Amino acid sequence: MTKKEKTKLLPLRIFSLGGIDEIGKNMTVIEYGDDIVIVDCGLGFPDDEMLGVDLVIPDITYLIENEDKIKGIVLTHGHEDHIGALPYVLKSISPPVYGTRLTLGIAENKLLEHRFEVQPKLFCVDPGNKIRLGVFTVEFIHVNHSIADACAISISTPQGTVFHTGDFKLDLTPIEGDVMDIARIGEIGKKGVRLLLCESTNVERPGYTPSERNVGRSLDDIFAKNTDKRIIIATFSSNVHRVQQIIDISARMNRKVAITGRSMQNIVSAAIRLGYMNVPNGVLVDINEIRRVKPENLTLITTGSQGEPMSALYRMAMSAHDKVELGAKDLVIISAHAIPGNEKLIDKIVNEMFKKSVTVLYDSLVEVHVSGHACREEIKLMHALTKPDYFMPVHGEYKHLICHKALAEEMGMPSNHIFVPPAVGHVLEITENGAKWNGTVPSGKILVDGYGVGDVGNIVLRDRKLLAEDGLIVVVATVDSQDGYIVSGPDLISRGFVYVREAEGLMEQTRLIARDTLNDCLDANNHDWTDVKNRIKDAMTRFLAGKTGRKPMILPVIMDI
Amino acid sequence: MTKKEKTKLLPLRIFSLGGIDEIGKNMTVIEYGDDIVIVDCGLGFPDDEMLGVDLVIPDITYLIENEDKIKGIVLTHGHEDHIGALPYVLKSISPPVYGTRLTLGIAENKLLEHRFEVQPKLFCVDPGNKIRLGVFTVEFIHVNHSIADACAISISTPQGTVFHTGDFKLDLTPIEGDVMDIARIGEIGKKGVRLLLCESTNVERPGYTPSERNVGRSLDDIFAKNTDKRIIIATFSSNVHRVQQIIDISARMNRKVAITGRSMQNIVSAAIRLGYMNVPNGVLVDINEIRRVKPENLTLITTGSQGEPMSALYRMAMSAHDKVELGAKDLVIISAHAIPGNEKLIDKIVNEMFKKSVTVLYDSLVEVHVSGHACREEIKLMHALTKPDYFMPVHGEYKHLICHKALAEEMGMPSNHIFVPPAVGHVLEITENGAKWNGTVPSGKILVDGYGVGDVGNIVLRDRKLLAEDGLIVVVATVDSQDGYIVSGPDLISRGFVYVREAEGLMEQTRLIARDTLNDCLDANNHDWTDVKNRIKDAMTRFLAGKTGRKPMILPVIMDI
Repeated sequence: MTKKEKTKLLPLRIFSLGGIDEIGKNMTVIEYGDDIVIVDCGLGFPDDEMLGVDLVIPDITYLIENEDKIKGIVLTHGHEDHIGALPYVLKSISPPVYGTRLTLGIAENKLLEHRFEVQPKLFCVDPGNKIRLGVFTVEFIHVNHSIADACAISISTPQGTVFHTGDFKLDLTPIEGDVMDIARIGEIGKKGVRLLLCESTNVERPGYTPSERNVGRSLDDIFAKNTDKRIIIATFSSNVHRVQQIIDISARMNRKVAITGRSMQNIVSAAIRLGYMNVPNGVLVDINEIRRVKPENLTLITTGSQGEPMSALYRMAMSAHDKVELGAKDLVIISAHAIPGNEKLIDKIVNEMFKKSVTVLYDSLVEVHVSGHACREEIKLMHALTKPDYFMPVHGEYKHLICHKALAEEMGMPSNHIFVPPAVGHVLEITENGAKWNGTVPSGKILVDGYGVGDVGNIVLRDRKLLAEDGLIVVVATVDSQDGYIVSGPDLISRGFVYVREAEGLMEQTRLIARDTLNDCLDANNHDWTDVKNRIKDAMTRFLAGKTGRKPMILPVIMDI
Repeated sequence: MTKKEKTKLLPLRIFSLGGIDEIGKNMTVIEYGDDIVIVDCGLGFPDDEMLGVDLVIPDITYLIENEDKIKGIVLTHGHEDHIGALPYVLKSISPPVYGTRLTLGIAENKLLEHRFEVQPKLFCVDPGNKIRLGVFTVEFIHVNHSIADACAISISTPQGTVFHTGDFKLDLTPIEGDVMDIARIGEIGKKGVRLLLCESTNVERPGYTPSERNVGRSLDDIFAKNTDKRIIIATFSSNVHRVQQIIDISARMNRKVAITGRSMQNIVSAAIRLGYMNVPNGVLVDINEIRRVKPENLTLITTGSQGEPMSALYRMAMSAHDKVELGAKDLVIISAHAIPGNEKLIDKIVNEMFKKSVTVLYDSLVEVHVSGHACREEIKLMHALTKPDYFMPVHGEYKHLICHKALAEEMGMPSNHIFVPPAVGHVLEITENGAKWNGTVPSGKILVDGYGVGDVGNIVLRDRKLLAEDGLIVVVATVDSQDGYIVSGPDLISRGFVYVREAEGLMEQTRLIARDTLNDCLDANNHDWTDVKNRIKDAMTRFLAGKTGRKPMILPVIMDI
């Protein structure tokens, strides 16, 4: 390349959109001139402050404004936090979507639940494939993870190669398929990686993540020791290899297998259809037919490993599952680790099951789960293979990104070659001269509540929080402002404040305070209803705070007739 | 004792009151004939379902009904879950309260915030003391724990000795004071323990809990490596030994120490006053004077190790502390472990501090905290020392109690000598012939919200939950029922549902549905206002569920004039 040509190059821009507590997780954008490629399109789950919110999706204002540039969305794997926003995003923009077979199979299931004006365009790729998207060449590279068919993404750009690990671990004895394609990653590294984006989930954990096969060994032992019990195993429905192992062990031990829980049934049937799961003939039985099988010859595979209310396992624990009643002859295995925030939900169902005399095994007692994410040594391997010029730690809380930066420094990378995104939406710009932060794009969290996308904002959440704290009191009166008297009321209606029957005296005192305040206003000929309402609100709030130490929301309604 | 005398013995009754997720934690009652002694009087913190609730205290109906029998409350140690309900309980019953010096010092601080008709009677004991309470002789026995002055309680009864471990660990190198009084426990065991109640917190953890001294060693290293930094350490205010170690190390390193956070200041001053803490002259500086000290010569000891909103550390992390501004020259040490449910709160402030370029150390990175509770081997030691006839695992979630039962069985105890309480309030009855469950006493959770004790029940909590999910809509109309027309309205007021400015169309459609429904009723001469309101509510709910997938609470108000 001559010097003249070099100067013609445009800057390469990389930034993340989306992410609740984590940065660089749900969606990454790579932009060069008039071309954009998007890596992943995931959603997040609401935190404790987001009362009543179902999902959180990335703000894609920038993508909508630059829709003509978008050459495609490439998916690393089929987990919710990487594909779950597709149904929402594809209603606003409609670029082609590329992913491996299982990833697209799961995505298709989700898209079927929504209606689209432009039908989504999904294109299947195999690990190892390269596709041309505008100025970019995108290569899918096989990695190990807790879902089959996961890929890292290598993107050739005029400014060099951007390597995005997606979620990965190194499993040297995977259940099906190959070990992570170390050779290919090394090859790409040798040719030169300009920027590495590497996940940071387990960066605080030393060593290597154990192989999925370890879980199989533990389960083997457990099954062998419990031939007199019905076995119920809860795990993540998307962990196709885990489910495969459970089916294999069950078949070997002459057990039939039944599947319960909607997402488990969906994913297992998709995985069988697409050839990702291999079930010996006659092993599967319908959940409606399990009475025909002796309990000690039955394995149930179920959802609910996170204690999710209304999941199949939750319903079993609470005696609300219509097909399964738990008791002393059951062994329940929770083959999962608590996602932060779910600890108490899981404890709750575990305690309930113990009360039913069920034997319960979980990961603090025995190795019935391994992580899908790389620990420190595997992360170091990824750095060693790719040998990037620049590095952006992604997919982690801020503390994880900082810890990942320290790891890279330990390996000899200069500090000023490491770019920890201060937040989503910060643009890293790479040119022939180096890399630097350069501005931001609109970004943030769009809350999905029911069918509503983005109509629940801070004011609504603040009100929900106030209502959840101390409830509310509606105070209603009809007045004749001309003649200056109260026609009817004020009446109080309270919800979530106190149980009124036990607090009749308090409510009557409060009512009199509202009445006196209203009368004072009418006597003073005050017809500024906003002011009158505020006076009533203030008087009631002051009285109730003194009496009860609580501040219910107060909604005065005055009808002037 | 002759046979004749033996047959005169009454049954001994033991039961727990209180406890949120845990059983046998906050309060244990031991009853023989006309004598009752109560071990501990603690509170619990609300779970996620108890919206707006501040505290949870035991239901003491049984104690109120049997007040004349109560000879005393004995306290094992000064943690909230063992003494925190005293201010509430002592308003209903007023037996003498016994505890060691620091325990009573902390209890007194709490009682001062409340008014009593009968002044509480507090009596100080030393470990090793025996007191006579009715038919019982109660002995306080020194144990190690994360607070100074903690005791196990041995109670001699006509039916033999009941040994209650309280919270304990074995610390062979304690910071101040002695190793747990193993010899005395062994002696009591030799004479014969009829019933052991033993805590179960760490029963799932193998081995021994490390000594508090390990934390000192880690802190020594950290202080030595960070002589250029201001050091801020958050820990539990009641962990007097931890605070003492931090002060000692600081003094040795020529640092001044300032204390911030109300409960930290309270407990440190109480501990110094009572001689539980020993601060070299000139080491402590007032938090208002810290500007006079070079940052690298200063240690700040603060509350907020659980990420509690509005704690001192929280305010520092959120740039809202009026005396301390965090930055790149600060090292923050979180010398604590997350209490289950607090993980995300702690993560939040850690991430915020990293964003301020603060160096943050916490227990997953370095040993800056050890538990105050016995692990499996220490629990086994307690069983081996006491060699009880019967055993009741307490102080743990149900799963811990079951795990503790298995541990006792491993040690050779017959299963039918182990009594896992199915819930609080179940009475274990011990006679010469053995032990058995025999009935229940009233028990449960009394919720404290503001000044209100017990006035928030299931209906109020259910309403708060509904309000938190989808908010509410108040629909108000004035009608003239005689002439059958709407005088004014219906008007809608919504809170926590949608941001109305962005949903004007939706709200207007909803309003028209309410109006049409109301008009239909008036046309049909329906003056049954309950029925009319239900019709409006149903019509609005149906419409909004279809349009938005949400179910806000709907409160119709109809004024008939």
